[in-house]
Amino acid sequence: MKKVILDLATTLDGFIEGPDGEVDWCIMDSDMDFEGFLSGIDTIFYGRVSYDAWGNFQPDTNTSPAEKSIWKEVHSKHKYVFSSRDRQDDNATFISSDIANKVSEIKKQGGKDIWLYGGAGLIHTFIRLGLIDLYRISVHPVALGSGKPLFENLRERIELRLVKTNSFRSGVVQLIYEPENRTAARPV
Amino acid sequence: MKKVILDLATTLDGFIEGPDGEVDWCIMDSDMDFEGFLSGIDTIFYGRVSYDAWGNFQPDTNTSPAEKSIWKEVHSKHKYVFSSRDRQDDNATFISSDIANKVSEIKKQGGKDIWLYGGAGLIHTFIRLGLIDLYRISVHPVALGSGKPLFENLRERIELRLVKTNSFRSGVVQLIYEPENRTAARPV
Repeated sequence: MKKVILDLATTLDGFIEGPDGEVDWCIMDSDMDFEGFLSGIDTIFYGRVSYDAWGNFQPDTNTSPAEKSIWKEVHSKHKYVFSSRDRQDDNATFISSDIANKVSEIKKQGGKDIWLYGGAGLIHTFIRLGLIDLYRISVHPVALGSGKPLFENLRERIELRLVKTNSFRSGVVQLIYEPENRTAARPV
Repeated sequence: MKKVILDLATTLDGFIEGPDGEVDWCIMDSDMDFEGFLSGIDTIFYGRVSYDAWGNFQPDTNTSPAEKSIWKEVHSKHKYVFSSRDRQDDNATFISSDIANKVSEIKKQGGKDIWLYGGAGLIHTFIRLGLIDLYRISVHPVALGSGKPLFENLRERIELRLVKTNSFRSGVVQLIYEPENRTAARPV
């Protein structure tokens, strides 16, 4: 069974962006092994806006070979786009209704895991429907005081069970959780 | 040289209280060794409101022996209260002006460390004046979506250096940081 993995970077005080959209605090060291994460997934879930911005992004010629290699790997995955309107696209499958059942079917296909890419609206829908299997939250060593919150407009608390922590040279600490109230909260 | 230690519990999404002041998510397991923390300090810094609420609190007769013992230990410390008005109190020394220099003098007395108890206003003053030596932030395995933020109204980012992490049975992860921009930010 495939798992749906949310992977987000946050500040210590729970912001994913600064008040003006700043993400310059977000560190990506080599010891964080993002390539290892990518090698464990074969599918990416996008919201429509995120897909249009990043789903077919091509790095320019000045980009480092390492980053080019990451983008090539990203674009080798199966892509699904969750959108209120149906659309045709050669590189992705659009899903516009019955999200919980369709995600459940995709998960049953087996193989590697699924990266829930975002944006915020899609993540919120997945939380509400109880569809996230793993929360990988990378806490960066900075506090901003204000900005865009990690989770907005939750209808109810997310109770979590800590699975693992990873500390990186940069001072980033990755906290990996499963949802604690999974069975009860899941309406599927 | 004494260190000023901020010790706070936060949710994964950076709230120290829920929207209605809820702290029922805050876990205190025995393996978190709060007694060990208390044994490493000999001084407590309170804001005036926190001091009036907790500075001389006596647990009632039904309280567990373990909790009674913690309160006894707390009340054995030197207490300083930071207040805009001067006041006399048999159990505490009041500081109403020149905070940075007075804290600097207390730190030079040596001995054990100082627990910066709070509340929020005092913590904010200490952050602004660059007086915190260690941030011990215990991240609880829950997200609330809204509530009272960990740090409010920061004038500038707090850049931190990760010193240590401790994981507890309950799923709480304690992240211990020193301020990164200490020398630059400190106006003393």
